[in-house]
Amino acid sequence: MTTVLLTGFDPFGGDDHNSSWDAVQLVAREWATEDILVTACLPVEFGRAIEELIALIDQHSPDLVIATGVAGGRTLVTPERVAINLRDARIPDNAGRQPIDEPVVAGGPDAHFTRLPVAEMVARMNGAGVPATVSLSAGAYVCNDLMYGLLHALAGTGLPAGFIHVPDRADLPTVTVSAGLRIAIEVGLEAD
Amino acid sequence: MTTVLLTGFDPFGGDDHNSSWDAVQLVAREWATEDILVTACLPVEFGRAIEELIALIDQHSPDLVIATGVAGGRTLVTPERVAINLRDARIPDNAGRQPIDEPVVAGGPDAHFTRLPVAEMVARMNGAGVPATVSLSAGAYVCNDLMYGLLHALAGTGLPAGFIHVPDRADLPTVTVSAGLRIAIEVGLEAD
Amino acid sequence: MTTVLLTGFDPFGGDDHNSSWDAVQLVAREWATEDILVTACLPVEFGRAIEELIALIDQHSPDLVIATGVAGGRTLVTPERVAINLRDARIPDNAGRQPIDEPVVAGGPDAHFTRLPVAEMVARMNGAGVPATVSLSAGAYVCNDLMYGLLHALAGTGLPAGFIHVPDRADLPTVTVSAGLRIAIEVGLEAD
Amino acid sequence: MTTVLLTGFDPFGGDDHNSSWDAVQLVAREWATEDILVTACLPVEFGRAIEELIALIDQHSPDLVIATGVAGGRTLVTPERVAINLRDARIPDNAGRQPIDEPVVAGGPDAHFTRLPVAEMVARMNGAGVPATVSLSAGAYVCNDLMYGLLHALAGTGLPAGFIHVPDRADLPTVTVSAGLRIAIEVGLEAD
Repeated sequence: MTTVLLTGFDPFGGDDHNSSWDAVQLVAREWATEDILVTACLPVEFGRAIEELIALIDQHSPDLVIATGVAGGRTLVTPERVAINLRDARIPDNAGRQPIDEPVVAGGPDAHFTRLPVAEMVARMNGAGVPATVSLSAGAYVCNDLMYGLLHALAGTGLPAGFIHVPDRADLPTVTVSAGLRIAIEVGLEAD
Repeated sequence: MTTVLLTGFDPFGGDDHNSSWDAVQLVAREWATEDILVTACLPVEFGRAIEELIALIDQHSPDLVIATGVAGGRTLVTPERVAINLRDARIPDNAGRQPIDEPVVAGGPDAHFTRLPVAEMVARMNGAGVPATVSLSAGAYVCNDLMYGLLHALAGTGLPAGFIHVPDRADLPTVTVSAGLRIAIEVGLEAD
Repeated sequence: MTTVLLTGFDPFGGDDHNSSWDAVQLVAREWATEDILVTACLPVEFGRAIEELIALIDQHSPDLVIATGVAGGRTLVTPERVAINLRDARIPDNAGRQPIDEPVVAGGPDAHFTRLPVAEMVARMNGAGVPATVSLSAGAYVCNDLMYGLLHALAGTGLPAGFIHVPDRADLPTVTVSAGLRIAIEVGLEAD
Repeated sequence: MTTVLLTGFDPFGGDDHNSSWDAVQLVAREWATEDILVTACLPVEFGRAIEELIALIDQHSPDLVIATGVAGGRTLVTPERVAINLRDARIPDNAGRQPIDEPVVAGGPDAHFTRLPVAEMVARMNGAGVPATVSLSAGAYVCNDLMYGLLHALAGTGLPAGFIHVPDRADLPTVTVSAGLRIAIEVGLEAD
C-alpha cells in the first residue's frame, strides 16, 4: 500500500489563514485513489516544524513526502529546487523567535537539493492549466528550515521528499493550487 | 441570435507569438453554444487596430465586444477598468510608429471607464480557479489605444464592450486563460 | 515670493510609519532656498484628505502643489500621470470607511491628467541617481482620491499640481526619496 | 598595497549593454584611493567566465574579489548569499550553450555561501541612499556559475570573495549602482 504525506502550515504574521493548509485540505477532501493520504498542519516555528514532520515520517513510513507553505507575492505554484543552511527571519516565528544569520544545522552542508522531480512536476502542472515554475530559493524562514531539516534527515535514504511553495489564495484560487498539488503527488509517485 | 466579438493581437516586440490570440483561438475551437462567436486578430498598430475593430462591429453587430491583449509580467487575467487618452510608447508599434505623449483622440476626455461588469467577471473567474483581478491601467501602448478608441466610439450606445489583458502563456497556461475568457463572455452576456 | 505646498500622508493599514511623510519631513529639514515650503501630513480618509488640501491651498496660495503618498511594493519614485473618478478600497481608510466602486465626484469626468511635467521630473531624477518612472495608475484608494479631488478643484486654473507615489523606506531609502522630491519641486517651479 | 578585483559581464540575450559593466566602469573612472583597482568584463559563457576570473586572481593576487552581473527585473542592489551547484539556462549563453539541470562542478557540494559580509554591505548601502537587500538566489545561469566556481576554487583560502547582482540601468541609475559597489568595496576591505 502506497502512503503519501502532505503537509501545510499554520497561519503566521497576523494572517487568519494559510493558503497552503487550505490547499492541502482540499486535496484531502477530494482524494479518490486507493493510496493512503496523510495530511498535517505544521507549526510556524523554527526547529519544531522539522521535529513534527520527522515524527510523522517515523509514524507513517510514507513513500512520498511533500511539504508545502505559502509564499506571499508569488503567483505561481513553485516546487523548490534547494534548501539552504540558513535561518534569517524578518519577522518572529509563532513562538516569538527570530533567528538572524544562524544555521539550520550547525556544521551541516550549505545546502541540500530537493529529492523531487520538480522540473517534471512543473511541466505537468502547466500542461494541465496550473501556473507553475521551479523556484531556486525557499527563503530563510520556517519553510526553508523545514525543507532543509527534512532533506538533511533523509540524506542517504531513498525516500522522495521536498517542498512546494504556493501563492496566497488571493493570487491563485485554492482549487487551482490543490490541482497542482495532486499533479505533484502523481508525478512524485511515478518517479518513485 | 446573440453574437459575441472577441479579438486578440498579433505578435510584437520581437515575440513569435501573442498569448492573447492563442487564448482567443482556443475559445473558438471549443465554442459549444448556439451563440455566434466572431474572432479576429488585430494589428499592433496605433489607430489601425481601432479602425479594424470598429469595422468588425459595423459588419457583425455584436451584442458583446471583448478585446484582449497580452501584458508581459502580469500573472493574472486582468479585465481593465479604464482607458486613458494617451499614446506613450516605449517601443515602436508594428508599423514603426512610436508616439510619445500624444492623445488617442485629440480633444477627447482624459479617460473612459469600461462598459463591462469587470468586478463580477473577476469574482466568477476566481471562483472557477482562474486567477484574476481588476486592473486600473491598460498602459499607454496599442492595447490602451484600442480600448480607448472602442469606448470612445461606443459612447452613447448601450453596447457592452471592454478590454481584458492576459498573461503570457509562460506565466499562465493558455487553457486557463481561455477558461477565463469564456467566463468573461458568460458574465458579459448575462449583464447584457 | 514663491510658495511650494508639499504633503505626505499619515500611517495606515497597521503600519507605524508612512514613508511619504518621512520623505517630506526630510525635504523640509534640508530646505535651503528662499522659497517658502509649506508641508502637511494629511489624513488617510476618503474626502477629508481633499478637504484639508484644498484648505491649505486657500490659506497659502502656493505656486506649486505636490501631494505624495506611499505605494507598497513599488521600488521607484513614480509621479502619477492620471487620477480616475473611482473609489474602490481593499481595506478601510483610517475613519473605517471602505467605499466599493463609487465615484470620487458624482458626475465628474472619468479621469483628470496631472498638471505636473512628470516626464521631465522623471528624466531629471534618473539623471541624478534617483530611480523613477512615470506611473499610469494612482490606484483607487485615498491617494487617487486626493489626486482626483485636487485636479478636479483646480480645473480651469493655471496652478501646477499633482501627485507622486514613493516606495516604502524599506525599498528605497528616505534620503533618496527626498532627493527625488526636491528635484520634482525644482522641475515644477521651472515649468511654472 | 591593497588590490581589489571588480568584474562585470558582457551584454547577452540580445541587449546592447550590460548594466553591471556600466557600473564597474564608473567605479573605475571615479576611483580615488591609493588601493589598486583591477576591473574586467567577463564573457557570458558557462565555465569560461570562471576560468578568466581565476586567471585574473592568479595574476593580480587581490585582497578582495567582487564579481557583478545584471539581474533584469530587480530594482535593488543585491549581494548574493549563496551559489548553487546547478546550471539550468532558459536561454543559450554567448557561446550558444544551454545546459539544463547540470552541475557546475560534478561531485561538488550543493552550494557555497558567500565569503563577503553581505548584511553589513546592505546596511551601509541603504544608509547611504542606495536601495539594497541581500538576495538568496543568484539564479542558475552564468552569474551563479561564476559565483559557484569562484567560491569553489577559493574554498580553504582566506580570500574574501562573492557576487553582487545589480538592476538594469533603466531600473536604477548607474551612478547609484556604482555608489553601491564603492560601498561594498569599502565594507569588504574593512572586514578583511
